Amino acid sequence: MASRLIQALRRAQPLTTRGYATVSNAHLPPVAGVIDVPQRILMGPGPSNAHPRCLAAMSLPQLGHMHPPFLKIMDDISEYLRYIMQTDSKYTLAVSGSGHAAMEASVANILEPGEKILVGVTGIWGQRVADLSARFGGDVVELNAGLGETLSFESIKNAVETHKPKVLFLCHGESSTGTKQSLEGVGALCKANGCLLIVDTVCTLGGVPIFADEMGIDVIYSGAQKVFGCPPGASPFFMSDAAMEKLQSRKTTVATYNMDMKLIGDYWGWYGGRSYHHTGPISNFYALREALAITAEEGLENSWARHQAMYELLWEGLTDAGLEPFVKKEEDRLPCVNTITVPEGIDAAALCGFAMNKYNLEIAGGLGPSAGKVWRIGIMGYNAKPMNVNLVVTAFKEGLAAQGFKK
Amino acid sequence: MASRLIQALRRAQPLTTRGYATVSNAHLPPVAGVIDVPQRILMGPGPSNAHPRCLAAMSLPQLGHMHPPFLKIMDDISEYLRYIMQTDSKYTLAVSGSGHAAMEASVANILEPGEKILVGVTGIWGQRVADLSARFGGDVVELNAGLGETLSFESIKNAVETHKPKVLFLCHGESSTGTKQSLEGVGALCKANGCLLIVDTVCTLGGVPIFADEMGIDVIYSGAQKVFGCPPGASPFFMSDAAMEKLQSRKTTVATYNMDMKLIGDYWGWYGGRSYHHTGPISNFYALREALAITAEEGLENSWARHQAMYELLWEGLTDAGLEPFVKKEEDRLPCVNTITVPEGIDAAALCGFAMNKYNLEIAGGLGPSAGKVWRIGIMGYNAKPMNVNLVVTAFKEGLAAQGFKK
Repeated sequence: MASRLIQALRRAQPLTTRGYATVSNAHLPPVAGVIDVPQRILMGPGPSNAHPRCLAAMSLPQLGHMHPPFLKIMDDISEYLRYIMQTDSKYTLAVSGSGHAAMEASVANILEPGEKILVGVTGIWGQRVADLSARFGGDVVELNAGLGETLSFESIKNAVETHKPKVLFLCHGESSTGTKQSLEGVGALCKANGCLLIVDTVCTLGGVPIFADEMGIDVIYSGAQKVFGCPPGASPFFMSDAAMEKLQSRKTTVATYNMDMKLIGDYWGWYGGRSYHHTGPISNFYALREALAITAEEGLENSWARHQAMYELLWEGLTDAGLEPFVKKEEDRLPCVNTITVPEGIDAAALCGFAMNKYNLEIAGGLGPSAGKVWRIGIMGYNAKPMNVNLVVTAFKEGLAAQGFKK
Repeated sequence: MASRLIQALRRAQPLTTRGYATVSNAHLPPVAGVIDVPQRILMGPGPSNAHPRCLAAMSLPQLGHMHPPFLKIMDDISEYLRYIMQTDSKYTLAVSGSGHAAMEASVANILEPGEKILVGVTGIWGQRVADLSARFGGDVVELNAGLGETLSFESIKNAVETHKPKVLFLCHGESSTGTKQSLEGVGALCKANGCLLIVDTVCTLGGVPIFADEMGIDVIYSGAQKVFGCPPGASPFFMSDAAMEKLQSRKTTVATYNMDMKLIGDYWGWYGGRSYHHTGPISNFYALREALAITAEEGLENSWARHQAMYELLWEGLTDAGLEPFVKKEEDRLPCVNTITVPEGIDAAALCGFAMNKYNLEIAGGLGPSAGKVWRIGIMGYNAKPMNVNLVVTAFKEGLAAQGFKK
């Protein structure tokens, strides 16, 4: 055996030098260098720390993407998502990619070129949906909220009735500004106006109540690395029957083959069969299955209540520290990602550095329209527990004191 | 503390019942049910078994996608890819998604609507590129090879000179048919004709020699779950300076925001800064970094030679078993994914079932144009070693004997 192998290796050698000069590996990162991943407490807007069960699932052996035990794991994901999204729809799955990929999948499948989409903009996610909708040929109308505010039902109703869009986009939890958009009445409004409703729940699903069917939502996408405490790379997705009808009756092909839900749904068993489309992120599906199972075991109501309770605990501490919420109206505040006004004279980045240096604790700055104006604190999933919230409050108090802050 | 928490939980409860009837979790997959991932030896066309170091990396703690230690891991990936692709280009990175996503990224960025793309079709991957190119508005010309054959340089030259395409696509390793497309002379041909060259190396990179710069290739994409023995979800990608010039001088916006390399490159530091675009699959980047490090530690020439040696060991055994290669010309055969002609009277699926039942060993059937005609055996990465190749040969011999096969 050994000599046969060595002979084969010798025969193979000429392959490497057929007129090409092979660059050496001498200049590479030291081959003995190990990957450096420090432990951090991620209390920013996400990723949040992964649940140990999800991390364990990430290291399970690979299965083939068409093997029955793997298809069972996909079926579990679909079933858990029906519970977590509160829907009876057949059309739930995990998109192979980040929340961003799922955002693109939502628009690409539901909006046809030339159709009007009304985009609620309460921060950067709405801006992105406006951008990517235009790339797919959509006729984009933006409906802008003031910074740190949400859209009133009246303003949405007025815009829908004026512009008669085919699609309305709303961001349930806007992580750049810390706002929570009310969805009350919007589903019925859309239905009455022949409009499909897409809702971004990247940082809310599982942490804030949402009822896909009763609220009349047509497309929901989310992320793994926020409330589900799971590594990113596989993202919850849902379509209503009405959204599916729209997809099936499109006049144009979906521009992205990679995110074509007619094809991907056929891999997920939406139409009864199983056709190969792409190789899904096997390990990420394992971990997402675990994350959804953990949420189901806890129970949705308990998970919602825990996030709300930790949000209240956070603000009790921050208020005591002399800090104020960036979002003025209490009903507009997002429990999962909190924006905190930076007091005058305080160096926001220095406080983040203080927390990272002393506790390996992530306190994040603003993003997009809130950059330089706020800190952001995530209350999500495995991280939504008193030990973490208490540490955040302590770090704020100490970091502010270090800058001589007086309330 | 405890009583404050309980009070908060009580206050939070009404959230759950504001007029919505919450579906219970009683019907879900048993909450005590653990995830079921049997151990399998994946000797089909991929995913192949992951290297234990990659699986270990998958379970490391999360880092923020903009944290310096994570950016360092991304830099390592870029640097290792320069070595593994044999290029000095700045423009290497891992696409956040499967090889399929990277395929779409390649076409979406390099081809403008209305431009001509010549697609070499030697199996299903060429067909897919033709499909997705048309979706992006490309003017697609297919150049088809016979089943189990590759395209001659003369036929490529003739087609390039006749059609004057802006982009040429070739699949280096066509896993559906088991063919390896020679790239000799094609880079220079493209350069002389003002055409950019995209090469699919999903199942060849690291296992078969490829020299991006010296071969004059403009875009390469690959996958993690083949030769690199890494879970899928992050995919090697490369652009030449010429490809970057084309991207920068596009008249139209890239249709997919999610795969816009102008933006993603800016997250990977291609232009000197670091701008947030999306949350990459953190854990998959850890694992890919490990997989590339393992390849660099082994050395490219050694990895190529090992794959070639295991290919020869496989065919020594299969020939002894009375089986024949589906690809007639030896120089057209792909060492990484081997296609084996199913002898007359033999039930191919029954043999696959035999191997799975007895050894938890995956022997795959055909795909697309080769469906029903062949078995497919992968010789890739961590799986490319004598113990696995020997078991495959044994399973074939026993499985054939069980069906009464005589050579």
